[in-house]
Amino acid sequence: MKGNIFYAQSGGVTPVINATAYGLIEEYFKNKKFFGAFYAGKNGILGALNEELIDISSEKKSELKLLKQTPGGAFGSCRLKLKSYTSSKKEFERIYDVFKAHNIKYFFYNGGGDSQDTTNKISKFFQSRRYPIVCIGLPKTIDNDLPITHCCPGFGSVAKYIATSTLEASLDVKSMSQTSTKVFILEVMGRHAGWLAASAGIIKEKPGDPPHLILFPEIEFNQGKFLKKVKDVIKNYGYCVIVASEGIKSKNKFISDSGLRDSFGHAQLGGVAPVLSNMITAKLNIKVHWAVSDYLQRSARHIGSKVDIEQAYMLGKTGIEYAKKGISDVMLTIKKKNNSKQLQWKVSHTSLGKVANIEKMLPKNFIKANGYEISKSCLNYISELSKGEDYPSFINGIPRYANLQCKTIKKKIKKFKL
Amino acid sequence: MKGNIFYAQSGGVTPVINATAYGLIEEYFKNKKFFGAFYAGKNGILGALNEELIDISSEKKSELKLLKQTPGGAFGSCRLKLKSYTSSKKEFERIYDVFKAHNIKYFFYNGGGDSQDTTNKISKFFQSRRYPIVCIGLPKTIDNDLPITHCCPGFGSVAKYIATSTLEASLDVKSMSQTSTKVFILEVMGRHAGWLAASAGIIKEKPGDPPHLILFPEIEFNQGKFLKKVKDVIKNYGYCVIVASEGIKSKNKFISDSGLRDSFGHAQLGGVAPVLSNMITAKLNIKVHWAVSDYLQRSARHIGSKVDIEQAYMLGKTGIEYAKKGISDVMLTIKKKNNSKQLQWKVSHTSLGKVANIEKMLPKNFIKANGYEISKSCLNYISELSKGEDYPSFINGIPRYANLQCKTIKKKIKKFKL
Repeated sequence: MKGNIFYAQSGGVTPVINATAYGLIEEYFKNKKFFGAFYAGKNGILGALNEELIDISSEKKSELKLLKQTPGGAFGSCRLKLKSYTSSKKEFERIYDVFKAHNIKYFFYNGGGDSQDTTNKISKFFQSRRYPIVCIGLPKTIDNDLPITHCCPGFGSVAKYIATSTLEASLDVKSMSQTSTKVFILEVMGRHAGWLAASAGIIKEKPGDPPHLILFPEIEFNQGKFLKKVKDVIKNYGYCVIVASEGIKSKNKFISDSGLRDSFGHAQLGGVAPVLSNMITAKLNIKVHWAVSDYLQRSARHIGSKVDIEQAYMLGKTGIEYAKKGISDVMLTIKKKNNSKQLQWKVSHTSLGKVANIEKMLPKNFIKANGYEISKSCLNYISELSKGEDYPSFINGIPRYANLQCKTIKKKIKKFKL
Repeated sequence: MKGNIFYAQSGGVTPVINATAYGLIEEYFKNKKFFGAFYAGKNGILGALNEELIDISSEKKSELKLLKQTPGGAFGSCRLKLKSYTSSKKEFERIYDVFKAHNIKYFFYNGGGDSQDTTNKISKFFQSRRYPIVCIGLPKTIDNDLPITHCCPGFGSVAKYIATSTLEASLDVKSMSQTSTKVFILEVMGRHAGWLAASAGIIKEKPGDPPHLILFPEIEFNQGKFLKKVKDVIKNYGYCVIVASEGIKSKNKFISDSGLRDSFGHAQLGGVAPVLSNMITAKLNIKVHWAVSDYLQRSARHIGSKVDIEQAYMLGKTGIEYAKKGISDVMLTIKKKNNSKQLQWKVSHTSLGKVANIEKMLPKNFIKANGYEISKSCLNYISELSKGEDYPSFINGIPRYANLQCKTIKKKIKKFKL
């Protein structure tokens, strides 16, 4: 009896995670004589816990094909981290029961650092039970903070979005700066790592070009130095463009956690950009505009990077090859070919244990000594990943994204309470 | 002696105002035997006041061509409204002196309602001086709030950006909603008119589709009703997408002016989205993500609408035709051809006096009775304007936008102090 596949999406989604899903699905259909059914977990690993399995074969092939150009997580994602077996015994046993009931012999988990940790734990647990299952982690995170892999699918596209948006908004604020707004601030994601903030830097060709200041989470924020720099930039160039990472800190305290309170006394949530805007207006008396792109950046498939989409897709396809060969306990990686001037890459792999729970920060030599700009090597690294356009198809002016039914199959075992 | 042209960009810029500039410039080069020089004002009408005139012929033709795909205001814009002759006598006289010194016989002013008012005043003033000059207003505003014209250049592209971004972020929050964020709020521009907020509505095909709530400035905001609606939507569909206009009010007070104060006691500036987010989290205890796209929406030429770009460009080209014919004292308009099912349009004109200082709000029948959705006729209107793609060219993953020198010509008269 051929083993079935269980695939799930995990953590914060990306513009290209569905391209990885489609790589798997397309390659699976080509290898149907080797595999049983292909199930996708509804809402990530929750799909296993709740025995909510979506049978891919019940979806229209034409819609599945659109996955390659569709952002978000088409099968639903979740934020749920499995602890050790001792602490999460119920969950591990439940996953065992569900996988056994549905003859799951291949487990693909598509996520970031936490998810690779979960894949690793599940793999080890099934090994201890002598249940043969291939466990493969597929990388995904716009934060680009997974170790070993050259880059993470999702990053290149979001980098392209941030670079393009910064360039466009810079032209806007530059036009307005003579009589009105002189400062524009864009807040970007990236958690503790400055990769996304750095990506705005690839639009700078010469001194004076925007972005004038990038605020990295790797560099401690210093209000006095920052305000002086803003003032100098405006004096020299007439306007100032700032790209700030959501994770910047001053004295180990997040800047976004600045104690803002609304008129009801509720603490205000999030937003580095409005805090910086306030600071500039209050101290320098300058008109500021600010944007927080939030999910817009994370889902901007309409301006996806061709390289990034191809990598995400190839990771999925290669996943099926690995499964056929029975290679388990690994996360697939992007490996840069040696000494290639232009980025040449292939899919490779590393042991799951090596990636779980390790965050890769922006290297020191990727930030210029002034602490506000990226180095040439950083620019080269990011440019290679955000290169090339791969537009989705449009209908009536709007992108045509996949519309899946996501019907779950009949349950075989009794209900589980989380 | 052939008369010279003075063209200037005014007010908040758009993704397509440079396409109008390019339409003018291209047509001007075809008609050089008819006109003298083509000057662009540096920073809008300030260019006239400061005698800062950019001679188009000193720019590279290849860069000028890129104007059609470049956002922002390539010659600089300004926010400066001329009052009556009595109050702004100095400015009117100065413009007269500069235009006379540089033999300006054609004045094109590219802007919104305030700018059309300025064009009208300048036209009337020159008439009173019996100085023969053709004054033509070219419409421009993402807010789409100019009367008489079927639509305003800039709106269709920003509508396309907002609709696409809302669709993409909706797929993201839907994926996350089972275990994490359940609400996504996007704040959009539009001042007192709900056109831009309405544009998110074109992605909705059936009940339950996002956006679930659009907050229009034309409809008074009611906190109780709003929170009940959010709760209901989450109960029924698992997640809730809200698009809020920056201009929404409750009891004649802007929602964004909610009395937020930072830890230094400074009033916090702007941001409807964080205020609504706070409200939902505090009252319903639900995780919310929010985005403020601000200038990103206004400059997103990378996802410009083909219809919109074509209209902006044709307005410029037609401007030169009108000038050749000596038609003055008008604003050019987009006129929808009668009874056409698909949008068919041509450039027409109206008297400047009819458009100055009139804001066109979203018609009542464009908003559904529930106050949170757009009607079918609104959807049709906006869809027609956001149709078609017209991507800029890219180099190394980034759009290639025009890079003008903007050198000003030698001054002929003495300095002026504003």
